[in-house]
Amino acid sequence: MGRVTTRRPVLRLSPSGANRRPDALAAEEPLEIRVNSRPLAVTMRTPGNDVELTHGFLLTEGVIGSREDVRTARYCDSLDAEGRNTYNVLDVALAPDVPDPDPGVERNFYTTSSCGVCGKAALDAVRLRTRFSPAADPCVITAATLGRLPALLREEQKVFASTGGLHAAGLFAVDGEPLVVREDIGRHNAVDKVIGAALLAGQVPLTGTVLLVSGRASFELVQKAAMAGIPVLAAVSAPSSLAADLADEQGMTLIGFLRGDSMNVYSGQNRVVEYA
Amino acid sequence: MGRVTTRRPVLRLSPSGANRRPDALAAEEPLEIRVNSRPLAVTMRTPGNDVELTHGFLLTEGVIGSREDVRTARYCDSLDAEGRNTYNVLDVALAPDVPDPDPGVERNFYTTSSCGVCGKAALDAVRLRTRFSPAADPCVITAATLGRLPALLREEQKVFASTGGLHAAGLFAVDGEPLVVREDIGRHNAVDKVIGAALLAGQVPLTGTVLLVSGRASFELVQKAAMAGIPVLAAVSAPSSLAADLADEQGMTLIGFLRGDSMNVYSGQNRVVEYA
Repeated sequence: MGRVTTRRPVLRLSPSGANRRPDALAAEEPLEIRVNSRPLAVTMRTPGNDVELTHGFLLTEGVIGSREDVRTARYCDSLDAEGRNTYNVLDVALAPDVPDPDPGVERNFYTTSSCGVCGKAALDAVRLRTRFSPAADPCVITAATLGRLPALLREEQKVFASTGGLHAAGLFAVDGEPLVVREDIGRHNAVDKVIGAALLAGQVPLTGTVLLVSGRASFELVQKAAMAGIPVLAAVSAPSSLAADLADEQGMTLIGFLRGDSMNVYSGQNRVVEYA
Repeated sequence: MGRVTTRRPVLRLSPSGANRRPDALAAEEPLEIRVNSRPLAVTMRTPGNDVELTHGFLLTEGVIGSREDVRTARYCDSLDAEGRNTYNVLDVALAPDVPDPDPGVERNFYTTSSCGVCGKAALDAVRLRTRFSPAADPCVITAATLGRLPALLREEQKVFASTGGLHAAGLFAVDGEPLVVREDIGRHNAVDKVIGAALLAGQVPLTGTVLLVSGRASFELVQKAAMAGIPVLAAVSAPSSLAADLADEQGMTLIGFLRGDSMNVYSGQNRVVEYA
């Protein structure tokens, strides 16, 4: 759709002078996700792969469990002031036996426990919703393979190279083979696009895979990986406390600060083969 | 409250060996914001400065316009399984003449226009809600002062230094004087905490100030700055297309890639004094 980047003039300043030149910026636009014609969520995303994003979002929020749970996914006829389709509203029709989601589905992840709103309630809510527990996945990956993944992810980050403005998420087999890489202005969207692509390809639950994210590992990203049955989540930067707690609770392997050939293993070290 | 960081054991792997040591992680917990006892939003945040966060959130989402619009803000008696207060639910009572917010207040920013859900609708919605337009602010800042700000921000990032896991936002006067710096696992929360602290100190609208963020500049961050009347937003990393569009529309100055003494000026260059 040609909207992944936009160009605009920028004034570059440094002590050696000022110059004006065109600059490529990562595109950001709202996407409204509707389910059975009812608005469910709005996310600010980089346009493109919207059907994947929507499938990934619905899977990781617990609305659907398989691609068969979606009957159709299509852009609505939402028109801008010039009468052109905005391609910013996607409506999903669920299969007849799939219940409609509650409004505020994201919020419910944090509040569906007797103990009020707290980290433990958030962990409990994920446990109640997970359809594909990663805990029993016996796969292993070597530290050397993990160490190669960030460079492989960067090779695939085409838009980042031109804008410096996008997060990336990449799914790999435990032997290091890249399966799918997506970029987005929002890191949760990049993960939803990756997981949605895998769902549409019939690969969920994602046993024997590693999800690598370009930034930090938050609770939300561990939740999304858990909901897709991904046993290993690796992040280039730091995890949060609740991310590590959730990885523990779900029997997942969580790696942080994966840089060069060094890394921190926060949970599930049984899946990581140390350097010889 | 001692919950800004937590410690847990981590296995550090590199080709030179493996060792187990304690590591400090940035704390992440849900905060539910209630208004007049009704749940309005849940955000995953680093505990601490929750009253500031809530004030900043309500201001930048257009629910309140001044500190006088809030009558009281206090933690609810939400108890965990051991009967202790979670300090994760904050209830705000509005002054009698302040209307209750719509549920889904955040979502409405993107959808309250005749043209459907699109970037232009998002820009229009902010224009309709802004109480303190930054457009007329005549302040200026030198490129040399801008160039000093990232180092000043890092000096104040105490938790980042121990965890590597937090975003920071800092408010500065145009002469470079630091006014308030906050850290959080979510960059929008760090900005809300900064703006909420300024609101509670009676400093909003924030004429003559610069807001610096440690990461990228998204639409949402420009929106928050505009709602607080901040004329200059600077980011260490890239802006998005819609962030630059909104800064243009609001008459704000937007700086990106502020690193060392070089920077990109995307809009409002009239406020930036170039290097001599």
